[in-house]
Amino acid sequence: MDLHVLPVELEKAYRLLNHGPTVLVSATHGGVTDVMAAAWSCALDFMPPKITVVLDKSTSTRGLVEQSGYFAIQVPNMAQIDLTYAVGSMSLADTPDKLAKCGVELFHAEGHETPLVVGCSGWLICKLVPEPHNQQTYDLFIGEVVAAYADTHVFRNGHWEFESAGPDWRSLHYIAGGTFYAIGERAVVKT
Amino acid sequence: MDLHVLPVELEKAYRLLNHGPTVLVSATHGGVTDVMAAAWSCALDFMPPKITVVLDKSTSTRGLVEQSGYFAIQVPNMAQIDLTYAVGSMSLADTPDKLAKCGVELFHAEGHETPLVVGCSGWLICKLVPEPHNQQTYDLFIGEVVAAYADTHVFRNGHWEFESAGPDWRSLHYIAGGTFYAIGERAVVKT
Repeated sequence: MDLHVLPVELEKAYRLLNHGPTVLVSATHGGVTDVMAAAWSCALDFMPPKITVVLDKSTSTRGLVEQSGYFAIQVPNMAQIDLTYAVGSMSLADTPDKLAKCGVELFHAEGHETPLVVGCSGWLICKLVPEPHNQQTYDLFIGEVVAAYADTHVFRNGHWEFESAGPDWRSLHYIAGGTFYAIGERAVVKT
Repeated sequence: MDLHVLPVELEKAYRLLNHGPTVLVSATHGGVTDVMAAAWSCALDFMPPKITVVLDKSTSTRGLVEQSGYFAIQVPNMAQIDLTYAVGSMSLADTPDKLAKCGVELFHAEGHETPLVVGCSGWLICKLVPEPHNQQTYDLFIGEVVAAYADTHVFRNGHWEFESAGPDWRSLHYIAGGTFYAIGERAVVKT
């Protein structure tokens, strides 16, 4: 594992998602691995940390999540904008070598089978909290975060450090039609 | 209603939330009105558009949503950073004149009772989709968007126009402890 990838305390894991980035979702089961992009992922609880993500019935990732009971949510960055768009556009069902074509490299955190995407800014390994009604009716999946990691170039001591990390580390916020926004400047309220 | 506030087609309403902004949630019932801030709100479906929002049991807004069956999600901007932090910190239960103290002015869209916050960039009026298990277990509320509006200074023809609108119109993305990030620069993938 890259020396810059360090664990994030579970109490602070929500901060990786709190500003609403577009994420990558990865999962594996029975030797099949997929990675997709999702703009619709959100924090749900602080401790234990939980998150939601919308996984359309057409995605291969969804089946792997349902079968394995695990998935990872990761926060990609500007250096990965093409990768993020590509894994969100291409389907593993149509393109068996999707991950290679999209330039996805994977790694594993010790003790976890769920594959993680190299080069992201943060990673949340989640255990599926089964809610069949939500999954079937709304494509809405709930995960409990069991481990979290971040790259110390851009997230240190529980804080995003976008200012010092350089433009390639800015998180991505998708709108539509290939248009993203990068996260911008920090603004602190006088408390 | 401000001449710059125009309806957004329901098909494109999800774009107001797709980049993950922190939102304001407003609701009214029996002569009581509250507005709160929520970082945990997310698009859930395209058409009819649905959204999720996490409303803690301690908030007064939650009770108004449950009783009236309606709420509005609105996208505040950098000009409203103090207002956004204030309505997220102060409780109507402790401070009956919370809205005045926070500088909140309200308006109404024709045909809708749910009050909207003046000065935001976008507004989504939502009808609660009752899901008692989600509400009780996860504080998770689902709304179907029945009307959407945006300020044409910053959202036109279904597109955010942050570049031309000026820094005060950038959306807010909350982290923790009074720290927000403004949305940043547009980045378009070659499709």
